Amino acid sequence: MENKIDLLVHNIGRLVTMQGQGEAGPRTGNAMAQVGEISKGAVAIVDGTIYAVGSEDEVRAKIAGMNVAQELDAEGRLVTPGLIDAHTHLVHGGSREHELDLKLKGVSYLDILASGGGILSTVRSTRKATEQELYDKARRSLDIMLLQGMTTVEAKSGYGLTLEDELKQLTVARSLNETHPVELVSTFMGAHAVPEEYKGRADEYVDLVINVMLPEVKRQGLAQFCDVFCEHGVFTVEQSRKILTAAKELGFGIKIHADEIEPMGGAQLAGELGCISAEHLLAATDEGFAAMQQAGTVAVCLPATSFNLRLKTHARARRMIEMGVPVAISTDYNPGSSPTESIQLVMTLGCLNLGLTPEEVMTAITVNAAHAIGKANTVGSLEVGKQADLVIFNANNLAYLPYHFGINHVNTVVKRGRVVVAEGRLV
Amino acid sequence: MENKIDLLVHNIGRLVTMQGQGEAGPRTGNAMAQVGEISKGAVAIVDGTIYAVGSEDEVRAKIAGMNVAQELDAEGRLVTPGLIDAHTHLVHGGSREHELDLKLKGVSYLDILASGGGILSTVRSTRKATEQELYDKARRSLDIMLLQGMTTVEAKSGYGLTLEDELKQLTVARSLNETHPVELVSTFMGAHAVPEEYKGRADEYVDLVINVMLPEVKRQGLAQFCDVFCEHGVFTVEQSRKILTAAKELGFGIKIHADEIEPMGGAQLAGELGCISAEHLLAATDEGFAAMQQAGTVAVCLPATSFNLRLKTHARARRMIEMGVPVAISTDYNPGSSPTESIQLVMTLGCLNLGLTPEEVMTAITVNAAHAIGKANTVGSLEVGKQADLVIFNANNLAYLPYHFGINHVNTVVKRGRVVVAEGRLV
Ligand SMILES: [Zn+2]
Ligand SMILES: [Zn+2]
Repeated sequence: MENKIDLLVHNIGRLVTMQGQGEAGPRTGNAMAQVGEISKGAVAIVDGTIYAVGSEDEVRAKIAGMNVAQELDAEGRLVTPGLIDAHTHLVHGGSREHELDLKLKGVSYLDILASGGGILSTVRSTRKATEQELYDKARRSLDIMLLQGMTTVEAKSGYGLTLEDELKQLTVARSLNETHPVELVSTFMGAHAVPEEYKGRADEYVDLVINVMLPEVKRQGLAQFCDVFCEHGVFTVEQSRKILTAAKELGFGIKIHADEIEPMGGAQLAGELGCISAEHLLAATDEGFAAMQQAGTVAVCLPATSFNLRLKTHARARRMIEMGVPVAISTDYNPGSSPTESIQLVMTLGCLNLGLTPEEVMTAITVNAAHAIGKANTVGSLEVGKQADLVIFNANNLAYLPYHFGINHVNTVVKRGRVVVAEGRLV
Repeated sequence: MENKIDLLVHNIGRLVTMQGQGEAGPRTGNAMAQVGEISKGAVAIVDGTIYAVGSEDEVRAKIAGMNVAQELDAEGRLVTPGLIDAHTHLVHGGSREHELDLKLKGVSYLDILASGGGILSTVRSTRKATEQELYDKARRSLDIMLLQGMTTVEAKSGYGLTLEDELKQLTVARSLNETHPVELVSTFMGAHAVPEEYKGRADEYVDLVINVMLPEVKRQGLAQFCDVFCEHGVFTVEQSRKILTAAKELGFGIKIHADEIEPMGGAQLAGELGCISAEHLLAATDEGFAAMQQAGTVAVCLPATSFNLRLKTHARARRMIEMGVPVAISTDYNPGSSPTESIQLVMTLGCLNLGLTPEEVMTAITVNAAHAIGKANTVGSLEVGKQADLVIFNANNLAYLPYHFGINHVNTVVKRGRVVVAEGRLV
């Protein structure tokens, strides 16, 4: 038995533990509304790990006689697990505010891309940028994310589209993971767009991804997952299958941007290949959901993207829950379709535009997000033995977070037992 | 000639002055897109007032030989006039996150109100609250507003609905105006809802507003404007006309919540009576716009409200601009239909949901907002002789603010020549 508690967070008004009933997989159906809430709670931390969590009485009983090095009084506030962003394009060069005018004139996302703008514009900026420039820019965003309560973030490459430039993005993510409190999970997404120099030769580019990029990323250990943008005008279902199958054989976990704009059958492919997650899914069909449900694929909904693209429709998250598909939600932070690091605004959009309850939203940005990036063993809930990642909010209850929107409610963030944000400021 | 400059803000990358072509009224049509932008600008301030503004060369030439007490290096950032929120329900008790569940189940705003919830729920909380409690809560919101770059804010009563409780709200606003850097403009809105105790006796309540409340508010000098919620199930056009006419005779400026949900003819009434502003206007007709255009009434659009109420439609701001109606936009901050103090999110919503350009949005939250609250002589643009209210943003250009959404971009706020926010923190 340990004899010292490093940090005791006490006087928690409502403690959202996200503890479930011992289930192994992501939450589905009614279980998405179970947040394991405890009144008057406490969390005791040893070596960055949760040693005790529960009602303050239980925790104090369990640690009786042990020294407590540091106490943190939550003053009756709401505490949740550290939030998890399962889908971002964190590392990139440039910004695209100049496309706002086009968008307001009604030019579509795919039309902007087809004319060499959109993703391809960011590809040019990212190729031009030095590693240091990419690092500095992404670090500023990571700071914002941490201030928003995010303690674990997935980051995709896919704005390089050459071996060298993809490695550059992934190397920056690795450096950030080593130097920033936010924990990063890297995804290789060489198949994010067909680069301009391969225009009309997409199959050749697919070969490059499979034969050159994937093996080298694997060799350098730079990414845990591989993702593909399966969409009309980007990569076909057949090309996506080829890439993801190759990635799987190399030992990558696999993900897919599926059925965002047109129902291509990406969700079915996700189920067929056993993707850990499928993203966007606005146009996915019930057949697609059924395939995902079978495979246990997590649906990562991105309501900030449909909001920002001014779409009239949103992912059918309620239908997914009805059909037993586990749902996560994320910012999709990227400089084009979703230039926001605000997971808290995404919570509001999850309620207003996806029709999720505040409890389901919390599941979607903790436990289910953790499953979507293969991290559920260590993060996503406050349980004994898990990493001590938690957030203290300036709020009394969970519903207050999506309700009072547009505002950052974070008071304190603890990552691996260390206070990294206090009074809303980086420590 | 002064011999001392109190504050020189220099090295401004882009200086949005909002200077127009000497027009007296609010901006309409193409003039809404003119923001008077200057590259490499500076602002010199004496006694809280702008002494010189323009290119850094011009300003330095004008102040040559004068002592500069304090210099503020904008480091190439974007500077705009202090932002103005022309429509808030700042002072109130309680919060209504418990209604989120009802809303997600599809219960409409007017149905929640009809069943004693909604505004009436906040009325109960506000009546129960002490002046100090109301002050403390509103002060926290004002801090958030200031941190968002707002330096002038309108605040309505209307959650008291008794003489005593309306005076309580207005008194709190007066105290805040005296103690907080944000400048408040008060509006009496006793006709915000028919209180429960007058259910079925709306005309009697209207008499109370006219015969008791309005004269006493006037006598105590607690409000500059009078506003009415003209809507199906709230106050009819006839009742609204009666109240606003009485208010006008007492010397109040008049405003109207008009045609938010159903086309009642509120916009026409605004034009007929010469309201300084008409609010919401989602259902207003072209005839209504024409009446407003004739009278010079400012349309105050509230896109956060339609967003939060999950409405499929938004105010027809582009049509208003086409028809020569001056447009302002505001948060409508209130605990029910728009629980947000984020004018920056409202800027994004102004672009995405109202179809305004970033320049039109800036006009809508500076010059036109100033006109909507009768403050255009002193605030809303950076011109010699006006109040020195300005914001330095962590941005290089105007479009970046609505583009990079969900985030607070404020670096520094100057109110009446005094730095009140620095590095994103209250000073
Ligand atoms: Zn994406
Ligand atoms: Zn209002």
